Amino acid sequence: MRTGRILHRGRVRRVELREGRLYDEAGEAHDPDRAAFLLPFEPRTIFGLALNYRGHAGELGLEEPKEPVLFLKPPASLLPHRAPVERPQGVAYLHYECELAVVIGRAGRRIPERAAMDHVLGYTVANDVTVRDFVGNLFRPPVKAKGWDTFTPLGPYLVSADEVADPHALALRAYVNGELRQEGRTDQMLFSIPEIVAYLSRFLTLEPYDVILTGTPRGLSHVRAGDVMRMEVEAVGVLENPVVEESL
Amino acid sequence: MRTGRILHRGRVRRVELREGRLYDEAGEAHDPDRAAFLLPFEPRTIFGLALNYRGHAGELGLEEPKEPVLFLKPPASLLPHRAPVERPQGVAYLHYECELAVVIGRAGRRIPERAAMDHVLGYTVANDVTVRDFVGNLFRPPVKAKGWDTFTPLGPYLVSADEVADPHALALRAYVNGELRQEGRTDQMLFSIPEIVAYLSRFLTLEPYDVILTGTPRGLSHVRAGDVMRMEVEAVGVLENPVVEESL
Repeated sequence: MRTGRILHRGRVRRVELREGRLYDEAGEAHDPDRAAFLLPFEPRTIFGLALNYRGHAGELGLEEPKEPVLFLKPPASLLPHRAPVERPQGVAYLHYECELAVVIGRAGRRIPERAAMDHVLGYTVANDVTVRDFVGNLFRPPVKAKGWDTFTPLGPYLVSADEVADPHALALRAYVNGELRQEGRTDQMLFSIPEIVAYLSRFLTLEPYDVILTGTPRGLSHVRAGDVMRMEVEAVGVLENPVVEESL
Repeated sequence: MRTGRILHRGRVRRVELREGRLYDEAGEAHDPDRAAFLLPFEPRTIFGLALNYRGHAGELGLEEPKEPVLFLKPPASLLPHRAPVERPQGVAYLHYECELAVVIGRAGRRIPERAAMDHVLGYTVANDVTVRDFVGNLFRPPVKAKGWDTFTPLGPYLVSADEVADPHALALRAYVNGELRQEGRTDQMLFSIPEIVAYLSRFLTLEPYDVILTGTPRGLSHVRAGDVMRMEVEAVGVLENPVVEESL
């Protein structure tokens, strides 16, 4: 099942994507090409992973991490499908990061790897937008690098776990203005979804609608105002957001 | 006004502290020494500041930061007054951090310093519990150092802004088992509340019930299972939590 939320005549409608149409709970159909998308659900905690793909650490001249490199993103940074990402004034290097986002469905603490997938409700696509200027130490991305308003596009749909046969065998592709810029596969993750869930829940309780951005492969590049970022995760969806100048 | 929430006969009661008694919305009085405290409100984003007190950076052999050093704490780490902090097994060095917590009441982006206090709803006491073993780079405290379940005691009351004449002139004191271990004053903050609010809202929208832990002065020390941590912020409150071994 692929579910989302749209704004229709001033109201939030929960919708399900079936055969290319969005059906709301009243049975009314909407055209996904024209719908005003909201976030598919309300995320609680947003966890990110840095340097979680083989080759990405190397591209940055770093060693691969020995344990998951975690960071948090503020809820203020969330953005729906098609809404514009604001490029902060005065920054030199803003980039996209195409990521598979894992959505927790069942709470748990100290979840063993073998049970981790039972806690996964589903998946969506994330773009972990980052100002490279402010990253500094790559093992500890600061709030100012990844926490701006509009820096966490997420969506368009929450795809239930049963629709994704193997989340570790998906192609990721990022396009800017239609040009392929980033390409990878989720089998290149250094730490798998069960390993990340086990690691995180070793020290905190995961709750429904916690979201884990599982990291990005090599192939980052600069985006400018006027560019359109298109993040594709095979079997999960296509998340598109234009870049605009920050309005002051 | 000092407001909080307690659990009474299985229900959440909003209470106000008046003349040493807690009055709920039905007018019933409760004894604060016997009440089962909950968090005084539901925090949204929890922002922390590292190295924000004069002398604390020096104690750690570091230079004072040139801009606020921000981190995020996960909501999973929140804990009410009197509930036990769980000391993770196998860690060498766990410490308290006594802090003035600022609670946002009015949303804003790009808030100028001169208007910052208009966005402050009130204050509470926080204990930013930290595993020093995992801190590493002090400018970027990792999730694993500060993000464990029970690592953000907060409360007991939300104290409205009008009750605190000058939040930059308050004494902070931390006691362990009744012994004074940490002492400071909020006038030692490197970045004041208006400076922090202006800085944060430069890149993200602050929302009601966002909480800013404004940092801790020098005087950190180790706590063990069986210890009781008592965090005092003048005019704001006394937050007490025992330390227990992590239950596996």
